[in-house]
Amino acid sequence: MAKTVETSDGWYALHDFRTINWEKWQQASKTDRNAALDEFNKLLSNWQNIEENKQGSHVIYSIVGQKADIMFMLLRPTMKDLNKLENEFNKSALAHYTQPAYSYVSIIEKSSYTKRQTDPYEDPVMRAKLFPTIPKTEYMCFYPMSKLRGETNNWFTLSKEERGRMMFEHIETCKTYTDDVKRIITGSIGFDDYEWGITLFCDDVLKFKKLIYDTRFDEVSAKYAIFGSFFIGSYLAKEELEAYFQI
Amino acid sequence: MAKTVETSDGWYALHDFRTINWEKWQQASKTDRNAALDEFNKLLSNWQNIEENKQGSHVIYSIVGQKADIMFMLLRPTMKDLNKLENEFNKSALAHYTQPAYSYVSIIEKSSYTKRQTDPYEDPVMRAKLFPTIPKTEYMCFYPMSKLRGETNNWFTLSKEERGRMMFEHIETCKTYTDDVKRIITGSIGFDDYEWGITLFCDDVLKFKKLIYDTRFDEVSAKYAIFGSFFIGSYLAKEELEAYFQI
Amino acid sequence: MAKTVETSDGWYALHDFRTINWEKWQQASKTDRNAALDEFNKLLSNWQNIEENKQGSHVIYSIVGQKADIMFMLLRPTMKDLNKLENEFNKSALAHYTQPAYSYVSIIEKSSYTKRQTDPYEDPVMRAKLFPTIPKTEYMCFYPMSKLRGETNNWFTLSKEERGRMMFEHIETCKTYTDDVKRIITGSIGFDDYEWGITLFCDDVLKFKKLIYDTRFDEVSAKYAIFGSFFIGSYLAKEELEAYFQI
Amino acid sequence: MAKTVETSDGWYALHDFRTINWEKWQQASKTDRNAALDEFNKLLSNWQNIEENKQGSHVIYSIVGQKADIMFMLLRPTMKDLNKLENEFNKSALAHYTQPAYSYVSIIEKSSYTKRQTDPYEDPVMRAKLFPTIPKTEYMCFYPMSKLRGETNNWFTLSKEERGRMMFEHIETCKTYTDDVKRIITGSIGFDDYEWGITLFCDDVLKFKKLIYDTRFDEVSAKYAIFGSFFIGSYLAKEELEAYFQI
Amino acid sequence: MAKTVETSDGWYALHDFRTINWEKWQQASKTDRNAALDEFNKLLSNWQNIEENKQGSHVIYSIVGQKADIMFMLLRPTMKDLNKLENEFNKSALAHYTQPAYSYVSIIEKSSYTKRQTDPYEDPVMRAKLFPTIPKTEYMCFYPMSKLRGETNNWFTLSKEERGRMMFEHIETCKTYTDDVKRIITGSIGFDDYEWGITLFCDDVLKFKKLIYDTRFDEVSAKYAIFGSFFIGSYLAKEELEAYFQI
Repeated sequence: MAKTVETSDGWYALHDFRTINWEKWQQASKTDRNAALDEFNKLLSNWQNIEENKQGSHVIYSIVGQKADIMFMLLRPTMKDLNKLENEFNKSALAHYTQPAYSYVSIIEKSSYTKRQTDPYEDPVMRAKLFPTIPKTEYMCFYPMSKLRGETNNWFTLSKEERGRMMFEHIETCKTYTDDVKRIITGSIGFDDYEWGITLFCDDVLKFKKLIYDTRFDEVSAKYAIFGSFFIGSYLAKEELEAYFQI
Repeated sequence: MAKTVETSDGWYALHDFRTINWEKWQQASKTDRNAALDEFNKLLSNWQNIEENKQGSHVIYSIVGQKADIMFMLLRPTMKDLNKLENEFNKSALAHYTQPAYSYVSIIEKSSYTKRQTDPYEDPVMRAKLFPTIPKTEYMCFYPMSKLRGETNNWFTLSKEERGRMMFEHIETCKTYTDDVKRIITGSIGFDDYEWGITLFCDDVLKFKKLIYDTRFDEVSAKYAIFGSFFIGSYLAKEELEAYFQI
Repeated sequence: MAKTVETSDGWYALHDFRTINWEKWQQASKTDRNAALDEFNKLLSNWQNIEENKQGSHVIYSIVGQKADIMFMLLRPTMKDLNKLENEFNKSALAHYTQPAYSYVSIIEKSSYTKRQTDPYEDPVMRAKLFPTIPKTEYMCFYPMSKLRGETNNWFTLSKEERGRMMFEHIETCKTYTDDVKRIITGSIGFDDYEWGITLFCDDVLKFKKLIYDTRFDEVSAKYAIFGSFFIGSYLAKEELEAYFQI
Repeated sequence: MAKTVETSDGWYALHDFRTINWEKWQQASKTDRNAALDEFNKLLSNWQNIEENKQGSHVIYSIVGQKADIMFMLLRPTMKDLNKLENEFNKSALAHYTQPAYSYVSIIEKSSYTKRQTDPYEDPVMRAKLFPTIPKTEYMCFYPMSKLRGETNNWFTLSKEERGRMMFEHIETCKTYTDDVKRIITGSIGFDDYEWGITLFCDDVLKFKKLIYDTRFDEVSAKYAIFGSFFIGSYLAKEELEAYFQI
Repeated sequence: MAKTVETSDGWYALHDFRTINWEKWQQASKTDRNAALDEFNKLLSNWQNIEENKQGSHVIYSIVGQKADIMFMLLRPTMKDLNKLENEFNKSALAHYTQPAYSYVSIIEKSSYTKRQTDPYEDPVMRAKLFPTIPKTEYMCFYPMSKLRGETNNWFTLSKEERGRMMFEHIETCKTYTDDVKRIITGSIGFDDYEWGITLFCDDVLKFKKLIYDTRFDEVSAKYAIFGSFFIGSYLAKEELEAYFQI
């Protein structure tokens, strides 16, 4: 029954959420704190070079509420790159002032419910979507999701046409927000516990709520969406990090 | 299918529940405890000024049972304000004697199932609801909730009329309690894991039980409500905090 | 749709379950242990005075299995009393040798599916039920529960007559056990995560199993009951506490 | 609707699963380790006497995988005996090198779907089942289970005849394994979170998988069984304990 | 109703996932780190000998994301071997720099929906599948799964023919990936909480996603599969371990 949707896959993505142990940070000597930040800034500079060379991308957001304090979103060409990168961070001094809070492993994915005529990897617009520089908007919203496989409503036993119809309705609802809300859709089947990760970027945080509320009435969301936890973040530019870690 | 409900949004809300490490607090020197309380009182004075200038609001409640010891409810004009505020608290000395227990991120929201004729932000009554000074009643009750998207009963596939009919029935049931129980309804779609946060305020804690019991028979609650955890708190005025932290 | 059941409410109840850190207790000096027990005994004497003056009641049970080691059940006239009481205990030395394991916040409740003719608060039998001295039986069984709001079977959309019919059948089944098993039913809608807390008292622990097994076949339990965790405890009289904490 | 199954109840059972803190154990002095083992061996000798005097029984198994390291299964005539026993162990030095991992409180139970003619407690075969010496087979398998109370399939609304028919089919499937796999069925309604605990004993661990796989197709399991966690253990005789705790 | 599927069982399997405490590792002296690695390398050499003598097999993968840092997959002829092996590792110095993250206990299993004519244990192809040397591909994907026993869709009440038909459709979908993706299917009924463990091996990590996405539309997956957590790992050869643990 493999009549499925064609998918083009881009860079691999790691969303890494962490809680900061502020007390431990405060109790550390100024020398230790500076050494930790210096080491971290070197890591960031490497990441910055990689982003400038279009070999990957990254952003850091400060998370609102107790679910986490900080999120790194990292894009790299291979899964091994991501694994190397997280191990490198885990061994760094700054990491020892943090606790893992949540993570998500996925890959940028563009699905198509129509038969493609051309190679998406040759298309510059598609390439920009598959291998993007992550937007640096004021706010970020991340949540993982799956499609329901209920005893009555089962996304995966619907015909491709039926699924396509609902996806198009959904895209219509989203169109109002296209200019303001940038989206990175990542696929995670086989990589993590939900099927997709949704990362939204916008300078107006309220647009996330409006968009997700509006789409909740779309048949595809109302009947078939299973949502994981929602994370809301406020952008932390490299130059704001010093103030962020100031104590 | 975007025929949804119009919503007016007000201040952003953070409910921050914490467990106090009383043993650590007791083992701290009197000097350290006083320094922590002084720093916290300065924070509170700032919050108080903000409230007096109608730029936000806050309350502190002592939570009954083991779910948490203390709750801060904070209202601010922007999500960034909330994030800054929680980071500031997290870095404070008093925070190091607490553990995060639960948090909720949302925004004050007034929904309307009728077509509005006027701009709610021009209406003084609406403005007072969207940008309120939080009531300082003896008791507070908080719980997050969502609407069911079941395979048979699905709130989000009902017609707007059907939803409106049930909401009006619900409002009727609540009317008996209007004078006694003040409500702040916050929306959290895209911001946190449930869709709404309900914060109730009353001097008679039993009224919470009566109100929620009565409304449980409303069709909208009986068939469509999914409830998260319930938190009950007893008011902690600024002048009671010293006694509260006395050891 | 507020055609609900009339409820008379009595004292507020806190079930407080704790795990004892026996290693820490053992490592404490004999002086520290004695000081902690002396302070706790003073607390207990106060509680005892309150019970003798019919201003509240309390019991302590030793819990079987790893869910908890010890349970305090506390009844008081106001929610504030309970909150004050738990804060007082949390600040005591003995508390620092325990970890919170579970708690339940509720209020003693007598429901009536018939139209009452008289004021239950004037009825001495009812008063004894609403403001009881907690039984000091050999064994105690506590569990919280809710009524199902399923897509097919929904307690809260049934008529009052239908609910009454099932409750009477249930009461019939319980009658066999009336002499042996004492019950305190507490309501927790709006106060905690389940709707009711059931606390059973009996000198023969097997009667709990027999009673709950028999009633599981009652329509109201079989189709509509959602059970939380079950806790079984063995009575700890004040004079047994010294031996209990002996190391 | 109390037309239920007759049950004969035997000894009370505590399954106590623990994780060993091997690092702490290794860091302890040889003197401390020996003292802890000596104390534990005395406890074991008491348990052994009790078993030889047919006043209870016990076994220790080493658990495979990270769920736990070690399991004590303990049978005693009263619930108070079990509580006393666990408190005694919790206060022992060896316990301080372990962490609770899971526990289960229940009572040995023999159900009968036929009208009994004789007193089961007078029947020597029944007595051996209700007050058994726990088998000391190479392997042990424990899991708790409940019967489904679904909106369509509800064990507790079926007639006794219907339940009996399915139980007999189930017993038929089990018969192939009777010689090899010994079973202790314990009831836990009112005592713990599932309704029954199943403890299987066999020298061939693969027989557990074959038995449970075969019975999964029985109507009673396929449609009505809800399973908790499965624990697999390898027997630890008293004389193997020294090697087990050798470091 | 024991008309079930014939199963041939091979080696026992333990998947052991661990989180590394990098801070503790870093704070250890170089001497302690070297001693821990030397001891671990001796363990690995033993494991290597066992693998070369076809008495078992093992692999180590570095896990992507926060679920775990490292996974050991271990195959041995008996469950006791696995238990001995994990106890040996748990007592080793390196283990004390790790925390358990997840584990899975199962046994290699080849199911057959046709009546076999020959003894699978005499067939060299089958023997290679039941007692395999684990592939050392660049990437590994592990997830546990069960079959749904829903109130409408229930795998275990279907006829053998119906189950066989769906399994064959599933195998057809998988065929496209046979050359690239190696599979080890392990059964865990009675041994762990899900019914099966799936371990996939491939040099191209994206093939896991494509395979699992494609098969999700198979009736057997769409309607009957319940998936646990997904773990993705990158191969850690013995010679890479030094670099991995370098700090």
